[in-house]
Amino acid sequence: MNHDHDKPVVALTLGDPAGIGAELVARLLADPQTTARANVVLVGDPWLWQSGQAIAGMRVECAPVSSLAAVRARPGNGRPAFLAMDTVRRDEVRPAQADAAGGASVLAVLDACMDAALRGEIDAICFAPLSKHAMKLAGMRHEDELHHFAEHLGVTGYFCEFNTLGELWTSRVSSHVPLKDAPALLTRERIVEAARLIYRSLQANGVAEPKVAVAALNPHGGEGGTCGREEIDIIEPAVRELNASGIPVDGPFPADTIFLKARDGQYQAIVTMYHDQGQIAIKLLGFANGVTVQGGLPIPITTPAHGTAYDIAGQGRADVNATANAFAIAARMARAYRDSRALAG
Amino acid sequence: MNHDHDKPVVALTLGDPAGIGAELVARLLADPQTTARANVVLVGDPWLWQSGQAIAGMRVECAPVSSLAAVRARPGNGRPAFLAMDTVRRDEVRPAQADAAGGASVLAVLDACMDAALRGEIDAICFAPLSKHAMKLAGMRHEDELHHFAEHLGVTGYFCEFNTLGELWTSRVSSHVPLKDAPALLTRERIVEAARLIYRSLQANGVAEPKVAVAALNPHGGEGGTCGREEIDIIEPAVRELNASGIPVDGPFPADTIFLKARDGQYQAIVTMYHDQGQIAIKLLGFANGVTVQGGLPIPITTPAHGTAYDIAGQGRADVNATANAFAIAARMARAYRDSRALAG
Repeated sequence: MNHDHDKPVVALTLGDPAGIGAELVARLLADPQTTARANVVLVGDPWLWQSGQAIAGMRVECAPVSSLAAVRARPGNGRPAFLAMDTVRRDEVRPAQADAAGGASVLAVLDACMDAALRGEIDAICFAPLSKHAMKLAGMRHEDELHHFAEHLGVTGYFCEFNTLGELWTSRVSSHVPLKDAPALLTRERIVEAARLIYRSLQANGVAEPKVAVAALNPHGGEGGTCGREEIDIIEPAVRELNASGIPVDGPFPADTIFLKARDGQYQAIVTMYHDQGQIAIKLLGFANGVTVQGGLPIPITTPAHGTAYDIAGQGRADVNATANAFAIAARMARAYRDSRALAG
Repeated sequence: MNHDHDKPVVALTLGDPAGIGAELVARLLADPQTTARANVVLVGDPWLWQSGQAIAGMRVECAPVSSLAAVRARPGNGRPAFLAMDTVRRDEVRPAQADAAGGASVLAVLDACMDAALRGEIDAICFAPLSKHAMKLAGMRHEDELHHFAEHLGVTGYFCEFNTLGELWTSRVSSHVPLKDAPALLTRERIVEAARLIYRSLQANGVAEPKVAVAALNPHGGEGGTCGREEIDIIEPAVRELNASGIPVDGPFPADTIFLKARDGQYQAIVTMYHDQGQIAIKLLGFANGVTVQGGLPIPITTPAHGTAYDIAGQGRADVNATANAFAIAARMARAYRDSRALAG
């Protein structure tokens, strides 16, 4: 009997080959807690994985596998599995540079993982930092990786990025759009979807009854309609609809004080109305530890909130904390998603 | 010879009579540092001042004066002067309640102080927390006290509120307007005025060469024009104009990372593009110690950033820290403004 068979399978990738991804993964896998959380399958180029271990000054014993399908059947007995892919040559990678070759490598590895997920072979993906710019140079047509994931996975429903920091998660009703366009994107439907998605996702992450707050759009929450009417016309009806449908949420709250309450533990999630409303707060609260969760996809996908950190790549001093947090969330959510699929199917 | 004659005259008020103002002023004046910074003249109702001292459990010896004009001529030798005004009866004040009677009291005291400032009798005003709502009930026609001050003082130029927290000050190009209207209020001229005003005000506060950063409007600073064009069309030209005119500023910077740099001491001031952009950050960085400075008026006016705190009024546990910071800024700026008036006139 091997309790590894109970654990979900989490695919882990090395990220942009010119960044700090491979050295972060070496640090992550050197910690025995990582393989205790899930059956890990590392996917990527052998030379890059060797290089990451060398930079981190760590050696991690892996069990080679010939396909992602093999992992669930033969868990590694506490050792990570390693699926070798040849996606980029070492001499194609320029240090600390966003290049098409690196972007193509990231896309090839992530697409292979997503295909395996669609076949039910893995339960979650945790990816090391990538460069959107490099991926666009390599032909990605979307504004960001989340939209690429959604298309590749055939998602037709609502999806959005969560920015998380320890016990506090945020979702947002609009994202990478000019600020002048954000108010027009505010609809009751989108607020309801963003709140419902973060509520369900937090449950999948192990929070049985998440406390969710909805932020206002206008200064001082619109001051009773004298400083903007979106609170009255859009946000309050959304809150009422959510509460009526069994998703308990509070709000709308003025954006400049709700994060104080969340910091003090009164809420586990804030639904924000536009990009910077949440990002200003999350980054001030502790950027170095943040995790991005891709919400609304058929499997959990997580990544550290920080980027490729080209400026310190190769120096062996990248901080693994956010990556460890990202992996832990992927492992927890993987179990919940796998179990719900088993129930459904 | 009395060095008190060198010190500027700062008028201090008791704020909304149902709030924590009078007890804060008792704590402030019980600290000998306060009268060391300036010749203080306390203005307000005798019963309210007695009550504040009783709540705070402190007794402060004051020197009665019959007019504000008397203070500069006869400094109190380290004791605060007290100008009694009868603006509200004790039995008109309901505890923890915003009322017209309280609002009228605040307006009467502040208007008297401003009239004295216009006659050159005082050099700054530091006011304890007031209630905008009570002042509106008492007939204030403006959206906030700053607009009332500007009208009463005959200000025709640019003015704006600074939110400050220790070494970090913020100004904003638009304030209490619906978010959807904020982008349209963004002009090169307003950005230049907001940056110039905070630069000069920080100099008056004793920072010889303030480092000023200008925030972007759009997510990620507009991503080179693909996510909003205000950075390229409006903000960058404003930054160039400022630098050409001898006001060194940096930016525009993405709003979700510039506050990290300011927190780490790289900047003393951030020019923000709308209300919540700065307020989310300032409140997370330490709301309890914040000070509001009314910029662009003929004399400095400051106040603690927190409000009347009706919920704890009368309990003697209000924290004096923000009020002490507000008074210290008023005293420093008072000296600079007085000296510049002397030079000019």
